[in-house]
Amino acid sequence: MPEHTLKFPELAPSGHHKMNWVTGHMPILGQIRRRYEKDKPLLGQRIAISLHLEAKTAVLAELLHIGGADVAITSSNPLTAQDDVAAALSERGVQVHAFRGASDQEFDQLHQRVLDIEPTLIIDDGGELTERLHGSRSALAAQVLGGAEETTTGVLRLKALARQGRLTYPMILVNDADMKHLFDNRYGTGQSTWDGIIRSTNLVVAGKTVVVAGYGWCGRGVADRARGLGARVIVTEVNPVRANEALMDGHQVMTMEQAALLGDYFITVTGNTGVVRQEHFNAMKDGAILANAGHFDVEVDVRALKQLAVATRPGRSSEVTGYEMPDGRVLWLLAEGRLVNLAAGDGHPAEIMDLTFALQALSLEDLLEHPREAGVYPVSPAVDAWVASIRLQSLGITIDELTPEQTAYLGQS
Amino acid sequence: MPEHTLKFPELAPSGHHKMNWVTGHMPILGQIRRRYEKDKPLLGQRIAISLHLEAKTAVLAELLHIGGADVAITSSNPLTAQDDVAAALSERGVQVHAFRGASDQEFDQLHQRVLDIEPTLIIDDGGELTERLHGSRSALAAQVLGGAEETTTGVLRLKALARQGRLTYPMILVNDADMKHLFDNRYGTGQSTWDGIIRSTNLVVAGKTVVVAGYGWCGRGVADRARGLGARVIVTEVNPVRANEALMDGHQVMTMEQAALLGDYFITVTGNTGVVRQEHFNAMKDGAILANAGHFDVEVDVRALKQLAVATRPGRSSEVTGYEMPDGRVLWLLAEGRLVNLAAGDGHPAEIMDLTFALQALSLEDLLEHPREAGVYPVSPAVDAWVASIRLQSLGITIDELTPEQTAYLGQS
Amino acid sequence: MPEHTLKFPELAPSGHHKMNWVTGHMPILGQIRRRYEKDKPLLGQRIAISLHLEAKTAVLAELLHIGGADVAITSSNPLTAQDDVAAALSERGVQVHAFRGASDQEFDQLHQRVLDIEPTLIIDDGGELTERLHGSRSALAAQVLGGAEETTTGVLRLKALARQGRLTYPMILVNDADMKHLFDNRYGTGQSTWDGIIRSTNLVVAGKTVVVAGYGWCGRGVADRARGLGARVIVTEVNPVRANEALMDGHQVMTMEQAALLGDYFITVTGNTGVVRQEHFNAMKDGAILANAGHFDVEVDVRALKQLAVATRPGRSSEVTGYEMPDGRVLWLLAEGRLVNLAAGDGHPAEIMDLTFALQALSLEDLLEHPREAGVYPVSPAVDAWVASIRLQSLGITIDELTPEQTAYLGQS
Amino acid sequence: MPEHTLKFPELAPSGHHKMNWVTGHMPILGQIRRRYEKDKPLLGQRIAISLHLEAKTAVLAELLHIGGADVAITSSNPLTAQDDVAAALSERGVQVHAFRGASDQEFDQLHQRVLDIEPTLIIDDGGELTERLHGSRSALAAQVLGGAEETTTGVLRLKALARQGRLTYPMILVNDADMKHLFDNRYGTGQSTWDGIIRSTNLVVAGKTVVVAGYGWCGRGVADRARGLGARVIVTEVNPVRANEALMDGHQVMTMEQAALLGDYFITVTGNTGVVRQEHFNAMKDGAILANAGHFDVEVDVRALKQLAVATRPGRSSEVTGYEMPDGRVLWLLAEGRLVNLAAGDGHPAEIMDLTFALQALSLEDLLEHPREAGVYPVSPAVDAWVASIRLQSLGITIDELTPEQTAYLGQS
Repeated sequence: MPEHTLKFPELAPSGHHKMNWVTGHMPILGQIRRRYEKDKPLLGQRIAISLHLEAKTAVLAELLHIGGADVAITSSNPLTAQDDVAAALSERGVQVHAFRGASDQEFDQLHQRVLDIEPTLIIDDGGELTERLHGSRSALAAQVLGGAEETTTGVLRLKALARQGRLTYPMILVNDADMKHLFDNRYGTGQSTWDGIIRSTNLVVAGKTVVVAGYGWCGRGVADRARGLGARVIVTEVNPVRANEALMDGHQVMTMEQAALLGDYFITVTGNTGVVRQEHFNAMKDGAILANAGHFDVEVDVRALKQLAVATRPGRSSEVTGYEMPDGRVLWLLAEGRLVNLAAGDGHPAEIMDLTFALQALSLEDLLEHPREAGVYPVSPAVDAWVASIRLQSLGITIDELTPEQTAYLGQS
Repeated sequence: MPEHTLKFPELAPSGHHKMNWVTGHMPILGQIRRRYEKDKPLLGQRIAISLHLEAKTAVLAELLHIGGADVAITSSNPLTAQDDVAAALSERGVQVHAFRGASDQEFDQLHQRVLDIEPTLIIDDGGELTERLHGSRSALAAQVLGGAEETTTGVLRLKALARQGRLTYPMILVNDADMKHLFDNRYGTGQSTWDGIIRSTNLVVAGKTVVVAGYGWCGRGVADRARGLGARVIVTEVNPVRANEALMDGHQVMTMEQAALLGDYFITVTGNTGVVRQEHFNAMKDGAILANAGHFDVEVDVRALKQLAVATRPGRSSEVTGYEMPDGRVLWLLAEGRLVNLAAGDGHPAEIMDLTFALQALSLEDLLEHPREAGVYPVSPAVDAWVASIRLQSLGITIDELTPEQTAYLGQS
Repeated sequence: MPEHTLKFPELAPSGHHKMNWVTGHMPILGQIRRRYEKDKPLLGQRIAISLHLEAKTAVLAELLHIGGADVAITSSNPLTAQDDVAAALSERGVQVHAFRGASDQEFDQLHQRVLDIEPTLIIDDGGELTERLHGSRSALAAQVLGGAEETTTGVLRLKALARQGRLTYPMILVNDADMKHLFDNRYGTGQSTWDGIIRSTNLVVAGKTVVVAGYGWCGRGVADRARGLGARVIVTEVNPVRANEALMDGHQVMTMEQAALLGDYFITVTGNTGVVRQEHFNAMKDGAILANAGHFDVEVDVRALKQLAVATRPGRSSEVTGYEMPDGRVLWLLAEGRLVNLAAGDGHPAEIMDLTFALQALSLEDLLEHPREAGVYPVSPAVDAWVASIRLQSLGITIDELTPEQTAYLGQS
Repeated sequence: MPEHTLKFPELAPSGHHKMNWVTGHMPILGQIRRRYEKDKPLLGQRIAISLHLEAKTAVLAELLHIGGADVAITSSNPLTAQDDVAAALSERGVQVHAFRGASDQEFDQLHQRVLDIEPTLIIDDGGELTERLHGSRSALAAQVLGGAEETTTGVLRLKALARQGRLTYPMILVNDADMKHLFDNRYGTGQSTWDGIIRSTNLVVAGKTVVVAGYGWCGRGVADRARGLGARVIVTEVNPVRANEALMDGHQVMTMEQAALLGDYFITVTGNTGVVRQEHFNAMKDGAILANAGHFDVEVDVRALKQLAVATRPGRSSEVTGYEMPDGRVLWLLAEGRLVNLAAGDGHPAEIMDLTFALQALSLEDLLEHPREAGVYPVSPAVDAWVASIRLQSLGITIDELTPEQTAYLGQS
């Protein structure tokens, strides 16, 4: 069996170039790397990885290899595999089985190849590895000490397995860690959503009215950045506590029915479906811009929009489509309602993924140091704090430590 | 036994005047009041209250009376009882046993009088009623259906009792509710702390460097308002996750040792002790201003400051004291290190206490509707949401409701 | 003739205390003082001053004395003279002729006494000295080398005199300097207006709708601080350029007629009359709060408000009056429509007056160094820049200087 | 003579598409257009235009044609002509003489063709038309009623001509209008600079330290948006008044020498040369990012950077170049020091150019209505106010008008 499955090994130089830029902006992985180079804490481990295979993921895979592990990786989505990065990574000591545009059958084969490493640890995205380790490759499951799962979808699959008593190893849910959701959602989504919107439209945000549907962590980030760009912000919510928070943060709060009349931009970040829909399209101003920053492309009801439209209009770029309403108004939909920061922008910056991937690496170590029963586990608070500390350290920031008197004082109360 | 224990019943007009102003700015209690006038949900209940007896508390006590209950109230601190409010409240159908400046013995007697009502429900602040109901008046405890506790200190006492298996009725911990801590701490403390500081010093905040020790909810509020006033903010923390949040929110983060050299204002909101201390005083700039917005007056080490000082200097008002260091620098301490928003300002606005006291009233109702075993309980999420909703309604704000499709969608995932 | 005219010389200790606090927060005057102590640039000059005689003004008068001048001072308003400060100042080498509550005749006599010093320079506020030097004391005018005027009112009088060819000496208009109007108006008024409002009402600003009438420098300051406190801001303007600026700064813009329906607070800063008037009172929400931060008490039409009202209601303090409308709504007017930052707060901080008074002192020096013909003059840009530089220096801040290459480059273009 | 000079007339569809998108976002030109369609105020005029020929300029040219004028246009820079837009415009009734990549000789010929229209009015960018009308085509100058100039460079040439008494017609300097510099510089540059930076680097701005050199209108915009993205901002200035403003706006102020040690991003907006230079490069942190948002590419001393560098490194995209210092640090320069918002982004949005081009059109009308002598003139305040008003109107915003009482009141003072 060949050690790698690649389409374009000759693209390695471009891949190295991408990995180098990213490496320079992932200081936490860099810190871990210096320790791994010396201590090799993963020596003897075999790690199987299924993640979107691009430069940042490649840096994680390389890191684990430097930590002493044998590592095999494939892409969790056939469309997100970058062939140049795959080629470069294969030259850095990691087994790579990935190429862009794999068919369903090839996609499965690539995962099988990765599992051939007979993993002791896994990093999964959406449960692709776990599915096979509880199905066709269940014979391998007994050797698995545990793993970490990146996404909400994967977490749901794992919880279902755990409820049924079928999960055969411990899995750590990276998504719920403070250093993941506080940062990725609030700061990552906030900035990248506006990057995607501005880049597609080249319109001024200052002086505009921005309607943000949902005031969870992502919604706060989007609203905060909108204000930072000079917009007036209207928030819609179904949760009255969050609605009060939005209000006290200086935003206006109303129903989408009311907001539909006022907005220049509508951005959905609810995690729900049909948030902006026919009745709202009917009320909007000519020229309103619609974008989704929530995970799935169901928040703006694109089907209803298409049904209403009497014609479509080309926009400024291919990411902007105008839907002409029967009364002549045009509503501009960005990225066909898919995640605007990914579809029309570049997704999360390396520095944000630095946090998430550090949580991944350290969670694997944590599993080795503290073996546990099959089940789903949160990221250990110590790991969360550790990532937070290393980030500060990488930025040259020192913070206070409790004095003995302070520790004692807190203990009393 | 006289129905009331008052010092200056003739001050009632002033007390009514204060209660009227406050009533106009407590719309949630106003909403509840309209229902209570009609439905009398507390009919047959006897409620004993120990809270700081001033206008806002009086409005709560009157509300419970309007809801059908017999109510008796005293002050949880002999120095915070306002004689004019006490007098006015006694004219509105509530039994009042309170006067300013009660001796320790009188303080106990006033609480005994209140307990003479043989309460079925209690509202406690710091555990004064519970202490007696588990001691000298334990004979009454069996009739108590439950109660609500306002403060952290009281909560700690209750938890200790519960751990020892000695707590004889259910108590709801109002302090932990979302509509309490998110609002009271973040927005209440943020604004009132700066009100207290500006009022005492009459100095410009814009262009200054403000050091905020602690980035919990209160610290965020104080930091946010400082920026809103045009200051540059430095945050000190012992928690690395919070330190990262402060950083991502645009503040600088460093140790107090480093910040001591830079700050024009130092504001402690940590809940800990000795946060600003001798080594920091030694490093500060001439003219630095020190204030505490945390609960206890131990965050700034006032004792060390006094020991270092070679002289004191009168400041702009009695709330500002200058401590002259051996090298001639003068450090200005506000309110002797006590809570600056209360000691040098007016404490939380009526609208903030409107939320807290609504939680109190509704928690008592919740206890009646859902009786439970002895123990400590959080405020019910439904009550939290209810207060949030009523607040929005009182402001004329409507928010979205989930459509059946949306409810179904959320249920699937 | 007695050297001083005082009412309560025994109050000097309190006056010294006030002057000391203020001195510590006027670093620019402090810098000038160190030079004056050494160089005595005003030696041989006789300076007559008419300004509101309180601690900050007293520090200016003392400074000029330290600079070598003989100085005589009175108060430009009989109600603003502080007897304790007058007493203290008289002990520091300045001739003081001032007491609180002087009758019209006494007020004139005090100014006459001050002019008896036979001034070579004057500092005037509202033109009281200039009026007499062009009337009853015109014999003294020939000796006057020039002076500085603090207020808009005084400036208008001076310009009228100049137009008529009657002004007999040069006067510098301090009000128009960058370091005066940019700072005093934007940052001073912004902060002190909200200080006055919060102190009188003790209500939460976060989540409220604040209507700011006028988007000049003062209006921007008030709007900016409102947002900093968590409010949503609506701006009304008559100038379309400023209206666009307000919009691009993230505020809403509309007519007062529209805003009247929405505001929780209405703050006028237009310099005009009848900005909030009957038709607006009729439309406002119950409980709306009205405050004026413009110079004169005509911006809110108080007369119309009183005529509409069927009753008045006492508010939280004497600075808050409720006007009950025929339909039962109550509108709360602060400080009877007078400048809310002065009437309900403490006016501008020492640090702001530090800038203005430094401009005064340096403008006098400038007149000595660059004698000029009778007429009105702006503050010299060099003086403006000098005050700006000294302020930075007093804060320990260094800025860049142009390199020779940069100077040459700018010269070419 | 052919009516048009085009390279690719077949590209017209793409050009129409671009013009349509832009037209939809230039509401002020749209308002003017509706009047022009009816009133034809430019009937009988012949207008020559030299501007960067892309979609927004094309919309202006078409507008003038709709207003009744004969219009001929070429591109003021051979590299900025867009062939598809040129083709589309030629189909809409405007004479177009432009193609991308014209040689110097061709560039001159294209301008000659445009002048063949024998203009009565001109719109110039950098003085290309004026140069010829005062040289080879001076015979035509007598017919020119006047014109408008877009750029600073052009303004300087015009002022030189005027000083020498050689300017033969009146020219209006659009660049100095309020609705140009307040909006274009502050809001346009602020947003587009960050768009360019984020798009090239995909790094998180929150939590970073941004050094902004220069606190003019552009600098304020860049600093304001940096804060809005969650950064800490340091401002460097040579003007002490502006330095104080930056400070009071909540930024830190220091020398570039000090800031060089602290910055993650360095953005120059000074209009000067050598603002970031060798001594600063030597002090910067590894990974610092350098960008220029000032007009010319001399603000960052790129030559010195290249001399210092021992190697260059490819960055994330072609707009990012890493310069490796002898000690191993890498400094990343964006767009080789050219205007980052144009070179790495899309320049100013249509809505911003809408303001500028409305000033152009209305200034031409103003020249017709108020003929004047040869010389340079500011945009009339009435035109500035008119554009401001039309913009508000196009946004559906109404503002207050002075009442007769208010007008009278202002007149008195």
